[in-house]
Amino acid sequence: MTAEIWDVIIVGAGLSGLSAAHLLRKRNAKLKMLILEGKDRVGGRTVTTEIPAANGVDRWDFGGQWVGSTQTHILELIKELGLETFPQFNIGKKVHHTGGPGAKVRTYRTSIPALSPLVLLDLTQLLWKIDRLCATVCVQDPWRTPNAVELDSMTLHSYIKQHAWTAELKEEMGLCSRSVFGMEPSQMSFLFFLMYAAAAGGVLPLLESTPGSAQELKIKGGTQQLSQCLAERVGWKNVRLGSAVTAIWQDAEWARVTTTTNTFLCRAVIVTCPPHLAAKIHYQPALPSQREFLTQNMPVGHMIKFIITYQTAFWKEKGFSGEIVAGSSSGCPFCVTFDATSPSGNAALVGFIAGEQASQWSSEEGGERREAVLSSLVKYLGCEAASFIHYEEKDWAKEDYSGGCPVNVMAPGLLTYYHPSLRKACGRIHWAGTETATLWCGYMSGAVQAGQRAAVEVLAELCPMALTQEEQQAVEHSLTVKDAVKQTPSSKHTYPSTTKAVVVATLAIGAVLLLAHNQNALLKVKSYLTNVFSTTTQNIFLL
Amino acid sequence: MTAEIWDVIIVGAGLSGLSAAHLLRKRNAKLKMLILEGKDRVGGRTVTTEIPAANGVDRWDFGGQWVGSTQTHILELIKELGLETFPQFNIGKKVHHTGGPGAKVRTYRTSIPALSPLVLLDLTQLLWKIDRLCATVCVQDPWRTPNAVELDSMTLHSYIKQHAWTAELKEEMGLCSRSVFGMEPSQMSFLFFLMYAAAAGGVLPLLESTPGSAQELKIKGGTQQLSQCLAERVGWKNVRLGSAVTAIWQDAEWARVTTTTNTFLCRAVIVTCPPHLAAKIHYQPALPSQREFLTQNMPVGHMIKFIITYQTAFWKEKGFSGEIVAGSSSGCPFCVTFDATSPSGNAALVGFIAGEQASQWSSEEGGERREAVLSSLVKYLGCEAASFIHYEEKDWAKEDYSGGCPVNVMAPGLLTYYHPSLRKACGRIHWAGTETATLWCGYMSGAVQAGQRAAVEVLAELCPMALTQEEQQAVEHSLTVKDAVKQTPSSKHTYPSTTKAVVVATLAIGAVLLLAHNQNALLKVKSYLTNVFSTTTQNIFLL
Repeated sequence: MTAEIWDVIIVGAGLSGLSAAHLLRKRNAKLKMLILEGKDRVGGRTVTTEIPAANGVDRWDFGGQWVGSTQTHILELIKELGLETFPQFNIGKKVHHTGGPGAKVRTYRTSIPALSPLVLLDLTQLLWKIDRLCATVCVQDPWRTPNAVELDSMTLHSYIKQHAWTAELKEEMGLCSRSVFGMEPSQMSFLFFLMYAAAAGGVLPLLESTPGSAQELKIKGGTQQLSQCLAERVGWKNVRLGSAVTAIWQDAEWARVTTTTNTFLCRAVIVTCPPHLAAKIHYQPALPSQREFLTQNMPVGHMIKFIITYQTAFWKEKGFSGEIVAGSSSGCPFCVTFDATSPSGNAALVGFIAGEQASQWSSEEGGERREAVLSSLVKYLGCEAASFIHYEEKDWAKEDYSGGCPVNVMAPGLLTYYHPSLRKACGRIHWAGTETATLWCGYMSGAVQAGQRAAVEVLAELCPMALTQEEQQAVEHSLTVKDAVKQTPSSKHTYPSTTKAVVVATLAIGAVLLLAHNQNALLKVKSYLTNVFSTTTQNIFLL
Repeated sequence: MTAEIWDVIIVGAGLSGLSAAHLLRKRNAKLKMLILEGKDRVGGRTVTTEIPAANGVDRWDFGGQWVGSTQTHILELIKELGLETFPQFNIGKKVHHTGGPGAKVRTYRTSIPALSPLVLLDLTQLLWKIDRLCATVCVQDPWRTPNAVELDSMTLHSYIKQHAWTAELKEEMGLCSRSVFGMEPSQMSFLFFLMYAAAAGGVLPLLESTPGSAQELKIKGGTQQLSQCLAERVGWKNVRLGSAVTAIWQDAEWARVTTTTNTFLCRAVIVTCPPHLAAKIHYQPALPSQREFLTQNMPVGHMIKFIITYQTAFWKEKGFSGEIVAGSSSGCPFCVTFDATSPSGNAALVGFIAGEQASQWSSEEGGERREAVLSSLVKYLGCEAASFIHYEEKDWAKEDYSGGCPVNVMAPGLLTYYHPSLRKACGRIHWAGTETATLWCGYMSGAVQAGQRAAVEVLAELCPMALTQEEQQAVEHSLTVKDAVKQTPSSKHTYPSTTKAVVVATLAIGAVLLLAHNQNALLKVKSYLTNVFSTTTQNIFLL
């Protein structure tokens, strides 16, 4: 078998791999590069599918769908590719159900969730503590964070258990963890959680759909277009689908990349697939053991995403926003839903079954899962929810060459011992994928940042003249350190003012609570709280 | 390519795979079975090597070496194969160094480590609490343990932090974790730790070299002989070395097992390699996602084992046992050493660099590591330690088709959500390896138990007549549940009496400590403590 010869081989045709290819191509059009993808499509963890809708058919995202206005890397790409964004609809009553299946289903209109004053106070103090810790995290080198070993030695669950006062808040935090990571709080290191939040500018941006947050904007026509447009620019002839890489061998001269049917020789490789899949590739010589230990302990989340199309957005007509949050004790299979009405007006809801619940529901029959979802929607939004046009779902754990979604987390004890090998090139192999990002790690924007960083590393090796002086220095001194220092302080600058308000509010409410022993006083606290927070510019409490 | 046809293919020629093969062969000599092994030798995580010694050369174990008198599965095998055991030498002064590089190096002769009375009291109460929890663990189905979710949501580190009073004990427990698992306490679920200890009959049997404990006996001629003798019995022609399995495909009729050069068809497969390596095999159809999530989050320990041979066992002449325990703060690279003098009298020491320290020292030059080890030995045992005959070490993280040692642990959140897929067959694929054992999980004995259990599962499918009625029922109702119920109570029966003594001692010492505020009183406590524990039949405190 004669091997094809290329300059660069990129493993994975998701956003990270295609962003890397796009940058390489822009800087040096002569570089021969090939992208190998196991799936029969580009897009990785983004996929846009046409399903029946009110006006015939329409397209929805069954993978990553949201971007935010602080996600500079993805926004620049969207602009460059000539795509458009539109805001997540979030006006109207939101539904909130925690505290057991029999607990009252509450609705609320402000951005403060329908929690009792005591739980809101609890939430305030917990977020205040976590944000203070977030501000100390070194995203680039998390082991340099003050008290890193201790923070990395406990799970997010242990931190919550220790610092949240109320059972309701503990349930609420489980819900957040499930919605953001597809994981239970027991499954990740608390330092990892802090690093992840710091890379997004704080905890609230992970949870909200307000400006600057993770669920702020959607892309007209769907997010898979990003990868399709990039493949177009890079050239489809350079993308081979159905070509899963099984081995990467290196010698003094070449890297030899093998699929089940072909072998390719090249000067540099960029591996962009999620860590648990990168771990399945056979490397020769073996990778440093620290790298192996790292990828052995970065489990991927589990999410089942569903889209349900309707004749009309009946929830809007009834004054609902379409947003429902339901805790694991509610008996509801999903943790969160949002309005998903398309830009052309086709009514739809989107929702997620995640974490432990995904694990349980994944093994049920599809029909039973759908019935459970619909029955909860009827309970929360009314009987109109039962009369849908189409129900479509995607269980990401069952997707070949993904095996989970949205992101790989880190179990305790990794960041302090093995993190340095996350981005460190191994000979001719460079590492990308959103898990290696330092800004919006775990998001589409992080995928782009990581792909571009890996491309710059490769250019520095193969054709350093194609880099700016700044980029050359960045490779030498690690670009991303500067990135992190430059950009994460935005959260540090933003937070103190919010933090002060929160501290004042906490103290004030605390004082009131100390005096208050009856329901009337509690109501006064709630009213006070609502006033305090409706005057702050940021919506702090939206889950 | 025409595929060879076999009845059973076993992936891995370690103790578990060869024990499975041996049982299959004994029950049905007509079964055609093939064992595929990636390494160029049998034995897996056991390997016995000849090195220069006082009388020329001699053999030492560079992998698993100890067995204990409660490890019935391995003891029966040793007897059947006609091998002999001899006790671990443990007479004389033991060295203990924790509390920082400048802290006093203490020696002690009893089985109670050289800790201050307060730390000993702390150790007593912590072990008492842990053993009480151990007694509640359901080894077979850990998620049935009372409070399982909570116990599995925290790391061992978090539990120790919460329940140990003194910094010294916290360091001591880190040392234990490193010595037993090659892992830091931050890297494993507390419920996993409890399950592991329960499968061994309690925490102390993991740590001691006393009767019934993990470090009690060694095998004359080395432990790799077990696998070599088994390969002999099974027939070397049925063992193919250098044949790493890359894929297992299943259809209605066959399992198709692929190596880089061959394809084999068979009726049943037993996969015995450690979970992180089983995760690298490509399965088609894909394994259930729960199984994938499980193996993605079972990191393997890291140990570097060294043997140093000497002209004479100078430590014995000086009254030392050869046992040294050193905490991570001591500046010493290894965590523990023992006398390793061979049955034929060749003097040697064996030691382990483990966990975080292995991770740090693994990337150093071999010469520097050796110098650091020797310099610590000189410090603890005297300048004679520098005049060695031969220094030989094995870094298990760098061993192909192992990638770590001694065992894979479970990160938090796994046991409660994904554990059921640990032993559950996937179509024609059955799972063995010591990690799947319910008695002495993680030890050579567990490897044998697991291999035999998988073999019984295969026989139940291919030739049920070869099974006893009891075994047939066991497969139906899960043999190992009975095993666990039958055998773990030995710990439950043993512990209460020890526990009572410990409770009485704790209360008594507590009372004395409350009264004592000067050094004299502390000395009295220490003397009291020594008296109390020298009268108990078990040596409770030996680390």
